[in-house]
Amino acid sequence: MNFVGAHIVSIDQFQRVDVEEVFSVADRMLPYALRQRVTRVLEGAILGNMFFEASTRTRVSFGSAFNLMGGEVRETAGFDSSALIKGESLQDTARVLSGFSDVICMRHPVEGSVADFATASRVPVLSGGDGANEHPTQALLDLYTIRKEMAAKGRAIDGLKIAMIGDLRYGRTVHSLGKLLCLYSDIEVVLISPKELRFPAELVDSMRTSGIRITVSDHLIENITDVDIVYSTRIQEERFSSKQEADLYRGKFRLNHAIYTQFCQPNTVIMHPLPRDSRIDANELDADLDTHPNLAIFRQTDNGLLVRMALFAMVLNVVDQVDDYAFNVRWFNARQT
Amino acid sequence: MNFVGAHIVSIDQFQRVDVEEVFSVADRMLPYALRQRVTRVLEGAILGNMFFEASTRTRVSFGSAFNLMGGEVRETAGFDSSALIKGESLQDTARVLSGFSDVICMRHPVEGSVADFATASRVPVLSGGDGANEHPTQALLDLYTIRKEMAAKGRAIDGLKIAMIGDLRYGRTVHSLGKLLCLYSDIEVVLISPKELRFPAELVDSMRTSGIRITVSDHLIENITDVDIVYSTRIQEERFSSKQEADLYRGKFRLNHAIYTQFCQPNTVIMHPLPRDSRIDANELDADLDTHPNLAIFRQTDNGLLVRMALFAMVLNVVDQVDDYAFNVRWFNARQT
Amino acid sequence: MNFVGAHIVSIDQFQRVDVEEVFSVADRMLPYALRQRVTRVLEGAILGNMFFEASTRTRVSFGSAFNLMGGEVRETAGFDSSALIKGESLQDTARVLSGFSDVICMRHPVEGSVADFATASRVPVLSGGDGANEHPTQALLDLYTIRKEMAAKGRAIDGLKIAMIGDLRYGRTVHSLGKLLCLYSDIEVVLISPKELRFPAELVDSMRTSGIRITVSDHLIENITDVDIVYSTRIQEERFSSKQEADLYRGKFRLNHAIYTQFCQPNTVIMHPLPRDSRIDANELDADLDTHPNLAIFRQTDNGLLVRMALFAMVLNVVDQVDDYAFNVRWFNARQT
Repeated sequence: MNFVGAHIVSIDQFQRVDVEEVFSVADRMLPYALRQRVTRVLEGAILGNMFFEASTRTRVSFGSAFNLMGGEVRETAGFDSSALIKGESLQDTARVLSGFSDVICMRHPVEGSVADFATASRVPVLSGGDGANEHPTQALLDLYTIRKEMAAKGRAIDGLKIAMIGDLRYGRTVHSLGKLLCLYSDIEVVLISPKELRFPAELVDSMRTSGIRITVSDHLIENITDVDIVYSTRIQEERFSSKQEADLYRGKFRLNHAIYTQFCQPNTVIMHPLPRDSRIDANELDADLDTHPNLAIFRQTDNGLLVRMALFAMVLNVVDQVDDYAFNVRWFNARQT
Repeated sequence: MNFVGAHIVSIDQFQRVDVEEVFSVADRMLPYALRQRVTRVLEGAILGNMFFEASTRTRVSFGSAFNLMGGEVRETAGFDSSALIKGESLQDTARVLSGFSDVICMRHPVEGSVADFATASRVPVLSGGDGANEHPTQALLDLYTIRKEMAAKGRAIDGLKIAMIGDLRYGRTVHSLGKLLCLYSDIEVVLISPKELRFPAELVDSMRTSGIRITVSDHLIENITDVDIVYSTRIQEERFSSKQEADLYRGKFRLNHAIYTQFCQPNTVIMHPLPRDSRIDANELDADLDTHPNLAIFRQTDNGLLVRMALFAMVLNVVDQVDDYAFNVRWFNARQT
Repeated sequence: MNFVGAHIVSIDQFQRVDVEEVFSVADRMLPYALRQRVTRVLEGAILGNMFFEASTRTRVSFGSAFNLMGGEVRETAGFDSSALIKGESLQDTARVLSGFSDVICMRHPVEGSVADFATASRVPVLSGGDGANEHPTQALLDLYTIRKEMAAKGRAIDGLKIAMIGDLRYGRTVHSLGKLLCLYSDIEVVLISPKELRFPAELVDSMRTSGIRITVSDHLIENITDVDIVYSTRIQEERFSSKQEADLYRGKFRLNHAIYTQFCQPNTVIMHPLPRDSRIDANELDADLDTHPNLAIFRQTDNGLLVRMALFAMVLNVVDQVDDYAFNVRWFNARQT
């Protein structure tokens, strides 16, 4: 895949070599994300950060990644502030907004909308998520996190055993991660969810076809005893006919310090796409694990910055210039502590 | 007119020589808008982009124009996020906010509000539109587009024949454009609208007094056969007593490829202030014209960037320094394709 | 107090020496705020300007202060655009967002929320206000303004006599200012309010314990005849059982040109935390005082910029580098007029 000038709207665009190229560039962004060095390579460039749906985390992550490369960010946040409500087509919006920036990040609640938008954009478009459909940078940051966590143990992604837990039916992040894992070999996936929230059957089939070994279960404990990663997700109450039924299910898929310590391997890594619901009746991933060194959930969001910086650098073709416009950070650097 | 430090709140401020000065500076901004060159002339300057009414397009255009000059943008978007709801006067808001920036763009839904705000501001204020009253940068970008499109045919604005189509009663862009055309000679304007949505009579009178030849009609086809420009606008359903009546009118003023090809001159330029309503029951300008080289609607929004850059440069007195702080763009430039 | 890397969430953190250090640094920021000089010392740094509650004034002030130091600003404005609504804890939000910036400003409607957030943040957090609890930068800018206004008369803060007027029960700015004044000597405070809106008794006690002389009254005129400062605040209608009762009270605590001229000393300074309610039935500080040289209310907001710049410089440890990365402003400078 040629990244220069490309739209990034689906993980289906990526071959293994592409994923690894992104990860390799992401590694090189670390000194900048850690605020050891500043680069101004994109000084004067403008990101149109067009979020036609509320999302503080992803929106700020994209914006900060662009600032970290030296660029400026113009932004919209939320649907009602858009000409879309006057009947403008997404293609018109794209044609206009792409005149105002060098690259666009776009989130929109409607499935397929980002790809539609991209067809009319005159500058590269990076998807920030389109409804239940795709959120490619989230999938890439998840896999990048797995790669880093495994590498710290002298392991590769090949040979991984991962348990995906919770709402596997509606959670787009686990679907996308499942697809990306098809690019790797000797992968084992344990899908743990209530029967009503099972991973889509056709996706299970295509993952099996690509060589992934898959176990499906609705029991948590006996299935997390020998995995490298537990990837927890939120079970949303509104998926069930009653709160009582939801609570019944949620109770069976919660991870906390006692369960983790008793049943998981001591080096099993804990992931979650965030936000996690910390209200007492949800609590899918207990705060008593917050200080555990294997809890990787905030390393995931930190890695998101690296992956997004890498994509900007590749799409805008400045990978080899990043270090040329760099200097040392001169202010207090909280990251180094 | 002395632009340095001036507020830009009405097109009535402009004489022909002023308009031409803006256009001349706008021409010089092209390499920066096309991302061939970066300028940092306004490095360290701050634009207060204060939109007390939702507007993605105009807000982002002003912000991007300022970023393209090297400046920073602080922003507000929407009415509810403002101290105005606590009973603060516009003058107080202006006094406070003008302490935080070097120049302000301001949009507000109330007619006259931008001029009120400007009287109390300690920095220059550029209007981003005040209700149905004024939107001076839109009028300037429309006329700048006409100038460029005509120049490509070896013509000037003088001698222009333009058809304005649709809702000519409530559309502030056609009113402002009409006023600006009074500054030019040998102009002919054909006003095509439903009788209920006629151009204001007093404005017709003053345009005629200034020498413009005006034809008024409620028929589209026979009036677009020999014009240089067709300027289409949206007919809003809510202007009529019933949807049936609205549809009746709208049907008669829609432009599409078949009508354009059959009735217009082959070099007639098509304009629209955008957003256009692309829903099937509105559709005032059909998507089947989207690839037509004479469709100038996205060149209009691109030109808006140039006009706004020019106004910033002139008001902040950096026109002759723009090129002194410039360097070549070092990233992938989608604009050059 | 060591400012480097510190969270600024309460004025209780400050000793007199700390306050004076902030003021001393704020003084040095003046040429930058006046747009005589530009500094780029924080070029490449990112402020996360996280306002989980609407506030144009304070939000833009923090953002502009950071831009004036050369840094970039990523922003959120308003509660609904936050993952908090999905049940995310403030601590999780802090852990994630602190990975995206070098320093965070945070406002949130819940008392204590900013301090909670700070405990989990990996970068310094500056409070932008947490409900009725604390708004430390407002208190600092108020005291900084008093210091400057008094200095212009050859006076110090020590020896000050100040009248606080209006809603002294719910107005957090007067509470915080009262606390800060405890750090100074020979202070006299006259508390003028309706009985229902009296200054909290325990705070009166602690101020008296620290040596402040306090008078409590519900009459305006006889109590403003010999003060250095009148600090007016808004009386909110909703605090009373009826609008009639509110109007009765509000009428007795309004300041206008006639009252000021007849009863105050000619050099008494007028302050207000803003926004002031200029609607006719509120009007706590009349517009007929707007041109009076002793009206310091817009100097207050200007000073806010200086105090926030100082805090950024101190927390990020660049105070002594600010001037090293400076150059002259090259655009039209409205501030110099």
